[in-house]
Amino acid sequence: MQYPSKLIEDAVTEISKLPGIGKKTALRLALHLLKEKPQKTIDLAQALSDLREKTEYCPTCHMIFDGDDCMCQSHRKDRTIICVVEDTPDVLAIENTAQYQGVYHVLGGIISPVDGIGPGDLNIESLINRVKADGEVKEVILALSPTMEGDTTTFYITKRLKDLNVKVSTIARGVPIGGELEYTDEITLGRSIANRVSYEV
Amino acid sequence: MQYPSKLIEDAVTEISKLPGIGKKTALRLALHLLKEKPQKTIDLAQALSDLREKTEYCPTCHMIFDGDDCMCQSHRKDRTIICVVEDTPDVLAIENTAQYQGVYHVLGGIISPVDGIGPGDLNIESLINRVKADGEVKEVILALSPTMEGDTTTFYITKRLKDLNVKVSTIARGVPIGGELEYTDEITLGRSIANRVSYEV
Repeated sequence: MQYPSKLIEDAVTEISKLPGIGKKTALRLALHLLKEKPQKTIDLAQALSDLREKTEYCPTCHMIFDGDDCMCQSHRKDRTIICVVEDTPDVLAIENTAQYQGVYHVLGGIISPVDGIGPGDLNIESLINRVKADGEVKEVILALSPTMEGDTTTFYITKRLKDLNVKVSTIARGVPIGGELEYTDEITLGRSIANRVSYEV
Repeated sequence: MQYPSKLIEDAVTEISKLPGIGKKTALRLALHLLKEKPQKTIDLAQALSDLREKTEYCPTCHMIFDGDDCMCQSHRKDRTIICVVEDTPDVLAIENTAQYQGVYHVLGGIISPVDGIGPGDLNIESLINRVKADGEVKEVILALSPTMEGDTTTFYITKRLKDLNVKVSTIARGVPIGGELEYTDEITLGRSIANRVSYEV
């Protein structure tokens, strides 16, 4: 594609490096910005550079925080339970349920030999050390994706935590609430029957 | 939604102002940038501010250009034909066909009473003046969208150009090339029969 100006071409090249955005969408976004007030683009560019330059990661739980104390140091959190997740969006998703009062540990990925990601590339060692050093941790919840990679990671971490005298649990798997039983995939439905829970009134 | 840091919240707010990007996608993009090298975000922010601050519009054809001569001044273009389009992407689309050698005139929108856009908000007056002042323009091609708004604009411009001694044409409408006849909508198919062209071997 030919661009009417080098500036547009540069902007399209940079925007289309973002995931899920191709050249056509990038061009549409660039032309949209040109139509809007200049301040809007300046604000966007500023927010992006601030985001990248000022964001810090907590050395304990590896979660994003900005300057102040990390949420894992908050007095409102129950520091005896650690929920292990793959990445930041998972923390936000769990926080939004308002069902969990404990702290988190962000792995920064999951074990995936295909992508060349081994246990050493993730924040697993720091989880083990955190549990060891803290001494007050009673339970580690493994909230990883129900995929082969997630299961591998769950298995690996469970093995590593074995001798540390903490309870290890995983989040429940089964039919999603509000979902139609007939449209649930066979594996999920099969497992939800195999792992049925007793119901008491 | 709660964000782990003000920086992320600001970035998400700014990114989600872009068309077709909601809060969830904006968050995904922001977290993606945080995972990548800082230089990538800096390049993106720089390309965006450069785009907005340095881009200029041609006073004659209202097309984007950067610093040098606009394409409407190029010696390789046939300045006796002006193709009138709604916006910049249309120019790029037509240029990519390599079927047109003339120059363009970007309206900056189309007449749309619903959105409060009248002829005065568009570069129509400048088109009339351009045709009058130039004296060499032989044909004006109206390449507007085949919608009600596009047809209204085509009608209005045609009326305004009536006494200026230029040929006015619109781009052909009919079944798209490569399309299946049975899946073409009724109005397009009906018009393509009504406006059939004689076929000679």
